[in-house]
Amino acid sequence: MSKILLKSALIEATRGKSVRRDILIAGGRFQKIAATISAEEAGDCEVVDSSNFAVLPAFYNGHTHAAMTLLRGYADDMELSRWLNEYIWPMEAKLRPADIRIASRLAVLEMIKSGTVFFADMYWHHDETLKVVEEMGVRATIGLSMADLLQPPEEIEKSFAFLVAHTGESERVKLAVMPHAVYTVSEALLKRCFAVAKAENYLVHTHLSETRQEVENCQKQYGCTPPQLLARLGGLNDKLIAAHCVHFTPEDRRIFAAAGATAITNPCSNLKLASGMPQINELLAAGIRVGIGTDGASSNNSLDMHDDMKLAALIAKVSGSAETLPAREALEMATVRVAEAYGLNAGVIAEGKLADCLLIDLSAESMVPCYDLVSNWVYAADSRCIDSVICNGKFIMRGRHVDGEEDIRCEAAACAARLVQTP
Amino acid sequence: MSKILLKSALIEATRGKSVRRDILIAGGRFQKIAATISAEEAGDCEVVDSSNFAVLPAFYNGHTHAAMTLLRGYADDMELSRWLNEYIWPMEAKLRPADIRIASRLAVLEMIKSGTVFFADMYWHHDETLKVVEEMGVRATIGLSMADLLQPPEEIEKSFAFLVAHTGESERVKLAVMPHAVYTVSEALLKRCFAVAKAENYLVHTHLSETRQEVENCQKQYGCTPPQLLARLGGLNDKLIAAHCVHFTPEDRRIFAAAGATAITNPCSNLKLASGMPQINELLAAGIRVGIGTDGASSNNSLDMHDDMKLAALIAKVSGSAETLPAREALEMATVRVAEAYGLNAGVIAEGKLADCLLIDLSAESMVPCYDLVSNWVYAADSRCIDSVICNGKFIMRGRHVDGEEDIRCEAAACAARLVQTP
Repeated sequence: MSKILLKSALIEATRGKSVRRDILIAGGRFQKIAATISAEEAGDCEVVDSSNFAVLPAFYNGHTHAAMTLLRGYADDMELSRWLNEYIWPMEAKLRPADIRIASRLAVLEMIKSGTVFFADMYWHHDETLKVVEEMGVRATIGLSMADLLQPPEEIEKSFAFLVAHTGESERVKLAVMPHAVYTVSEALLKRCFAVAKAENYLVHTHLSETRQEVENCQKQYGCTPPQLLARLGGLNDKLIAAHCVHFTPEDRRIFAAAGATAITNPCSNLKLASGMPQINELLAAGIRVGIGTDGASSNNSLDMHDDMKLAALIAKVSGSAETLPAREALEMATVRVAEAYGLNAGVIAEGKLADCLLIDLSAESMVPCYDLVSNWVYAADSRCIDSVICNGKFIMRGRHVDGEEDIRCEAAACAARLVQTP
Repeated sequence: MSKILLKSALIEATRGKSVRRDILIAGGRFQKIAATISAEEAGDCEVVDSSNFAVLPAFYNGHTHAAMTLLRGYADDMELSRWLNEYIWPMEAKLRPADIRIASRLAVLEMIKSGTVFFADMYWHHDETLKVVEEMGVRATIGLSMADLLQPPEEIEKSFAFLVAHTGESERVKLAVMPHAVYTVSEALLKRCFAVAKAENYLVHTHLSETRQEVENCQKQYGCTPPQLLARLGGLNDKLIAAHCVHFTPEDRRIFAAAGATAITNPCSNLKLASGMPQINELLAAGIRVGIGTDGASSNNSLDMHDDMKLAALIAKVSGSAETLPAREALEMATVRVAEAYGLNAGVIAEGKLADCLLIDLSAESMVPCYDLVSNWVYAADSRCIDSVICNGKFIMRGRHVDGEEDIRCEAAACAARLVQTP
């Protein structure tokens, strides 16, 4: 693997204090970060003048449905059941594996352009998305989605076979067991998911307590809340990463924290679908690890983690005080917290960590003046300030260009046009 | 004034339905919009192939403090009184007129780059900001800020003299009377402001009911809420444009609506400073005209209207339902509603309206696919999709470049560095 030497990049040394550093990237990791690294010491490497750049952690998207990007804007401003029944599900029924590949490419392109190098994906035809991740140089945890109340049994069996064989796992791609939600998965299948995850050492990712309706129905059917149901079925533990967690009770938070499970908040989606205000402060106060995800682009409608990061900070403040969730903590929720949850030694700019980072253009007007690098990045900037993205020690975007991007957009637009015309 | 012919641009014809149109801009207005406008008919003009662009209304920023952009990120994540007393006010005390000019240029640059062509500005050394607006080709309503509890009396008299002379008004620049707030302006000065506004036919812009504290203190001092105080002093009428309006009572909304006053909501700022959740749905339900503003970049910390537009929609939804404040209405709040309030016949793409618009790059990944142009623009896109900005019939940004932008950023960075070192 080739080496990169970022010369004289601005990084945050201690809270609020930024310094210029040389950063040597080798073997896919930050090998050395120092005031000066000589060419001799760096050896054979590409030297990049980074004096106009800040180097900040890339984003890790804790929850999305990448291929739904193809349904972006197809139906908005309507309540959930009409949205699903009249628009999303009929459209999804038309999607073939080739469409999923096209859609996943568009999603990964949008994520790279907005600084995301990793995403946890819950969708169908996972093998197509998996190939796209390999091909485009990012990282992902790809879900085997399970929803026996919607799916034929043979698909479930195929998914378990895929999981037991660990098909398609690699340096950048991991699999996970992803039962969709307590209202789309039977009790028996939930139990089986948790058992297989334990036996095969997989993480489990699911939607949890997203809407009030979900919690009420769970109470009616099972006599307990969704997190309590997972606990009863052997699924509430430190392998669990739950998306949304909007309607937890205090007891839910207590058992969730005690189990060491992770919550992924999706603020844009929760607000747009009127699911409720995310409980960011309450989850954090309970000692729960909280990461951020974008959710899919048909409910957000963007895969830009920066938007959700800023929104998470704003929601925490208005639900607390102006001092709640400072910029650095919001940034951590969009980076290292998600990386930790998904087992990646990444999300901070430090020696030994995976070399995933963003080169931020310090001359972008929203980064001027620069009294506090992280504050500017979280509150003032947006993804157009990202000049380049490095994942696993390689440039995957450079000067805002991603290889093949024009083709990806054209192919996606053509595919969407075809879908609309298909009866 | 030179003419522009935008050929084959995508515009929204009716709700959710977009069409290709030729758009002829002449005399600073949209002169003709038709399926085809021939070169002969257009006459001597610049023809712009717009087949890759959507043409959408530019943003009108209903409330900001442009020059505070120089304080962006200087102090964050702290409560209001510490923020003002320990950081903002000491720093503001150092600002000279030349600094205000530099800071205003940076602000206007950031606004142009994010698609804003008009802003209502409340700050000091208004004559400097006014010159910048003239020079950079945008529009503004520039406030003569009044706050006798903070200001020496001679400044107030100078401001009134400026107002009575209508100094500096032009095609693109208007003045307005801007008493800062009920807690910084005496009863006598409030009365005088309203009287002068009436006599000289000025709009009045003020902060109103931004925090719970403000309302409580007003109740203690005057025995009524801030809008009720304005009513008592002759200031609650259709010339009033009030920023924030976070803590209105039902009676406040009733009298505010009956008076025909305008509310400008500043969602990012209200959330970041924990002032409270904006009452967007309640204001609209009361029949009040509601526009959007960014507030200043030291409390937002961005002047990007797109962020506030999306956030306004999200807040309305989570406080109502997924159907509340559809994309088009959020867009109107960031465009035509503000334009109307400030007396501009603008904010929609229609014949006879002022020729202010954005050329949106339809190949930007967040605009793909494009089932619904306005939905994509409001929920999925961001300001990096803006290729060009036209104000008053002239390009003020083209291919994302603004004349002199490098100098503006360098000058602002140098100015900020100097301020920090000044004791």
